[in-house]
Amino acid sequence: MSRQREVRIALLGAGKMARVHALNIAQTPGARLAIVAGGSKAPELAERYGAATAAVEAACASSEVDAVVIASPNGVHADHIELAARHDKAILVEKPVDLDLARVDACITNVGSATERCVVAFNRRFDPSFAALRQRVHAGEIGALQQLTITSRDPARPPLEYVPTSGGLFRDMTIHDFDMSRYIAGEITKVYAFGQRLDPDLAELGDYSGALVTLETATGASVVIQNSRHNPSGFDQRVEAFGAAGTLALTNPTPTLVRSSGPDHSGAGDAFIRPYAERYAASYRAEIEHLVAVTRGDAAPLANLHDGRHALALALAAAESARRGVAVSLEQ
Amino acid sequence: MSRQREVRIALLGAGKMARVHALNIAQTPGARLAIVAGGSKAPELAERYGAATAAVEAACASSEVDAVVIASPNGVHADHIELAARHDKAILVEKPVDLDLARVDACITNVGSATERCVVAFNRRFDPSFAALRQRVHAGEIGALQQLTITSRDPARPPLEYVPTSGGLFRDMTIHDFDMSRYIAGEITKVYAFGQRLDPDLAELGDYSGALVTLETATGASVVIQNSRHNPSGFDQRVEAFGAAGTLALTNPTPTLVRSSGPDHSGAGDAFIRPYAERYAASYRAEIEHLVAVTRGDAAPLANLHDGRHALALALAAAESARRGVAVSLEQ
Amino acid sequence: MSRQREVRIALLGAGKMARVHALNIAQTPGARLAIVAGGSKAPELAERYGAATAAVEAACASSEVDAVVIASPNGVHADHIELAARHDKAILVEKPVDLDLARVDACITNVGSATERCVVAFNRRFDPSFAALRQRVHAGEIGALQQLTITSRDPARPPLEYVPTSGGLFRDMTIHDFDMSRYIAGEITKVYAFGQRLDPDLAELGDYSGALVTLETATGASVVIQNSRHNPSGFDQRVEAFGAAGTLALTNPTPTLVRSSGPDHSGAGDAFIRPYAERYAASYRAEIEHLVAVTRGDAAPLANLHDGRHALALALAAAESARRGVAVSLEQ
Amino acid sequence: MSRQREVRIALLGAGKMARVHALNIAQTPGARLAIVAGGSKAPELAERYGAATAAVEAACASSEVDAVVIASPNGVHADHIELAARHDKAILVEKPVDLDLARVDACITNVGSATERCVVAFNRRFDPSFAALRQRVHAGEIGALQQLTITSRDPARPPLEYVPTSGGLFRDMTIHDFDMSRYIAGEITKVYAFGQRLDPDLAELGDYSGALVTLETATGASVVIQNSRHNPSGFDQRVEAFGAAGTLALTNPTPTLVRSSGPDHSGAGDAFIRPYAERYAASYRAEIEHLVAVTRGDAAPLANLHDGRHALALALAAAESARRGVAVSLEQ
Repeated sequence: MSRQREVRIALLGAGKMARVHALNIAQTPGARLAIVAGGSKAPELAERYGAATAAVEAACASSEVDAVVIASPNGVHADHIELAARHDKAILVEKPVDLDLARVDACITNVGSATERCVVAFNRRFDPSFAALRQRVHAGEIGALQQLTITSRDPARPPLEYVPTSGGLFRDMTIHDFDMSRYIAGEITKVYAFGQRLDPDLAELGDYSGALVTLETATGASVVIQNSRHNPSGFDQRVEAFGAAGTLALTNPTPTLVRSSGPDHSGAGDAFIRPYAERYAASYRAEIEHLVAVTRGDAAPLANLHDGRHALALALAAAESARRGVAVSLEQ
Repeated sequence: MSRQREVRIALLGAGKMARVHALNIAQTPGARLAIVAGGSKAPELAERYGAATAAVEAACASSEVDAVVIASPNGVHADHIELAARHDKAILVEKPVDLDLARVDACITNVGSATERCVVAFNRRFDPSFAALRQRVHAGEIGALQQLTITSRDPARPPLEYVPTSGGLFRDMTIHDFDMSRYIAGEITKVYAFGQRLDPDLAELGDYSGALVTLETATGASVVIQNSRHNPSGFDQRVEAFGAAGTLALTNPTPTLVRSSGPDHSGAGDAFIRPYAERYAASYRAEIEHLVAVTRGDAAPLANLHDGRHALALALAAAESARRGVAVSLEQ
Repeated sequence: MSRQREVRIALLGAGKMARVHALNIAQTPGARLAIVAGGSKAPELAERYGAATAAVEAACASSEVDAVVIASPNGVHADHIELAARHDKAILVEKPVDLDLARVDACITNVGSATERCVVAFNRRFDPSFAALRQRVHAGEIGALQQLTITSRDPARPPLEYVPTSGGLFRDMTIHDFDMSRYIAGEITKVYAFGQRLDPDLAELGDYSGALVTLETATGASVVIQNSRHNPSGFDQRVEAFGAAGTLALTNPTPTLVRSSGPDHSGAGDAFIRPYAERYAASYRAEIEHLVAVTRGDAAPLANLHDGRHALALALAAAESARRGVAVSLEQ
Repeated sequence: MSRQREVRIALLGAGKMARVHALNIAQTPGARLAIVAGGSKAPELAERYGAATAAVEAACASSEVDAVVIASPNGVHADHIELAARHDKAILVEKPVDLDLARVDACITNVGSATERCVVAFNRRFDPSFAALRQRVHAGEIGALQQLTITSRDPARPPLEYVPTSGGLFRDMTIHDFDMSRYIAGEITKVYAFGQRLDPDLAELGDYSGALVTLETATGASVVIQNSRHNPSGFDQRVEAFGAAGTLALTNPTPTLVRSSGPDHSGAGDAFIRPYAERYAASYRAEIEHLVAVTRGDAAPLANLHDGRHALALALAAAESARRGVAVSLEQ
């Protein structure tokens, strides 16, 4: 595919993330939203961007489509990956690939070499600050990495009706942190997790409100992840990498750069960003740009199905650790 | 004009700022780049966004155009404003309206009530952080404003060939700070300026490399502006508002939120942003959104021709002050 | 004892910490260094501050002494506590009380009600920033505490010859963090620890170079401690308390408040402080002031022998957890 | 005088600054408060530190005194300098030397070579952060200095009864900033000042509530000073030095290093320090240590009578500029 060639995209789904992707596709030079498929809201979304509608199967099969963005319900991600792969489309799939490890393994087997054109949308890998920190760690700026500290606190819990289908805190939320752990610190060998039940509504649904997870890596480095579903200050998602030669750390973005001082405080910034579409706006734009590049053969997936599989395996190990109160070793 | 109606824009000019505007028009929902007019690079720019080309006069007269973005050379801004106004188009014009005060006054007279649909693109008014600080000052958060501190240092001087046509530091660069002074602190009554000649190339061209300007306002508040054409750290553009009840201040954005510590430093961020298109990316997007709103009759210009006129008058007073070494009072 | 009455202090030991205490005693209004006892360097230290010298036993028995500061070698702390208590002196003892839990228990039994006048010198409790954070957490500013993050990285490992007598990382270094955990988050019920062996010299001596320790509290809160013996940036000792209503966090002090910007960085402060006597200068002063207050009956110990005992129990549990790779529950 | 020799100090005055000095003399190794002289409160202060009392003349003449700290009322500073110099004592004198320039000139003439042992207590020169910034600027870290920004806002105005004897804002408060300007940026050639009358009580007494002062230096650099008597946030005293190669800036200290985040803010520190004895505690300690060194012949005054004279001349020029509304050139 030549550089000039426009990348025509079919979007599966018309929910919140689908709408974010639709806008970014519309705003990305070289990309065009060709089809919106699936869901009762698809026609409205398609109309807004001058796209067609189609059934999912037809959209994936269409010769007018180069790439597929999968933002359909979690339970059918793996099916849709396989469908799009069968028609040789480039793919961007929202996490999780699936909540079931065997299904993910089957999917990987089924799509074969299409894994090389299938991007898993771990949004933090696409954030300029997370990416820069990782790049500098890998470039050796802080020497050997010894301790990685990941903080990940969401402004508010998801809708309660979503919780039972979410796979639970570790597969739904911590999975991003597991991926970031591997992305920065390499392979993980051991997990110990403490799940917190500080929110009665979540507890009643069998889920955790927060967690403290510690990991050991193959190189002897440590990783700690702290999660909360309820951060009154907004999105608090940081990484701190401590190495033999120095430290690199992220601060949180705020809506503006205003700082306030007065009789009882100094240097106060805005509360952190609350809407995820705003917090990760740059990531979502970058994901579409990356999909364009992968479609054109100019880039390999920044996160692929194997990465999605590893993150899920860590989530399952953490869930087991939290349930049983013991450390769990990972099979490599 | 209904909310549904797309705003069709003619872009005058095809230089650097024109290209920034073209991209943002393409990415703004409800806006469409209809025509690019003027300059040898217009056809290429038009083609990239699927727009037509036309002569400037025809573009302004076209019934297929609702609004005109004037990014033509400085010397013809006022002519183009008058032309677009004659055809009843909404207007976004790059500063300066003109370098000559009499010409600006004539333009204002000539366009009459069209001033109500003509936006002067003082980009800092459109920046979320500058805007939030101003809004909070005006909302009374720090009580009566007493001292305003404006820092405005560019990464690098403009091309030397541009300097002779620039109008000099005060009309080319400080004009943004004069506008910001008025925007936050209200009307200015007195100016004292010290122009620095620390760059031999600029001095040879009769221009300053930096300046220290102090203003008095009608309410007895003070304003200080510091300018430099040469900031090795990148864009340093801050405002600090000190009032009877507290202080609000801006920090500078950086490309990422990574902070580094090591044997000889702690908490080091990236150098400040250098490309202006990146520093003020949000402003340039907001300018086009604002033009859409003004075109539709949903908003009055955030900065109008009178604002452009006042800023120019301050620039001329500052230039006189620096030349003569005396304070200059402003006629109201 | 009246407020006017000078508190006469016997200092046991003449090593590094003893010299810090001697200076602070000299500078604390209401305190006087009366005797320096023990060690070959005692005469020199005594002479510098115009104090007498004596054998340890005689110093503790002297009717010219109101309070005893125990900065003798770790192995005799408990003996010296008992000795000073027998003569009814107020006591400030460097940690650890002892490396052996049974010995600490015996000491507590032996001194009886003298525990009410015996201060264990956990220096962070005396630091204004750690103290303020704890006070604000306990005052309810952030609602129910949910997650506590303790970072504790020293600039450099101790002298290798000290290591075999130190009790190992958990009893020598992490013990401060265990105390801080209890001080802020209350009683601890479970410990899981990962000890790192990234320093070959320490590994050869059977000790860890760093650790990641996670704790559960009786209220369901989590605590994480990260330790390193080798922080190239200097002392990194922070606490972050995350609660249902907000977050309180400490930053690290730096030698000066200068911030630097340039072509490749912005906002860079000094590296963190390296000498512990400088990092905790305010704490060491406050310890002596506190000892004066305790001696006069104006204050109860900010940290007492029971606190020392609990911290040691946590250190032993962590060591066991790290050794066996399992979580260890604490007996209450 | 050998290093061993204790420096015996006579303290003239027993007011607020005298009490600060007395405490620091008591806490400085190598210094001893020998005599407190002058004022009805002298006996109480002398008794607290075990010093004698004497008349001022006798104190300055005493062979038991090596150095004199002058914290007497402003109007007699010059007399006391001359008196102490006549008896060959080293001197630390609170600013101002005198409010009258002719009197300062006469004093300098009268004391002759004793200027080499007379320290003017410009406290910011002794602050570790101001000192470090100046040292780094002079070491060339930011290349040629181009713009210096001095912010100096006090928490609250002085007692109204003090105002008429203060010499007015420029001689009482800005004088510190004039000294800092010279200390960092070198000789000043021109002054333009705008005095603000935003406090009716101060205005009634003929004084300013704040000021904006701009200076030009012999090298073409600019300096701007902003003053306020009323900063609700506490002491805001910063310097920013902008040079050809980078920027160095100071932040304000806060009582603790706690930072708070919550639903409407992030990263909020304490309000700035309010009591000056606390804000400049390190400076006042360093002044006494410096006096000890000067007395022993180990150091030349960090600020001498000529520095005091230059700062006063700048204050007078600024007052004239503010009164007449014109720029004032300095005679060199």
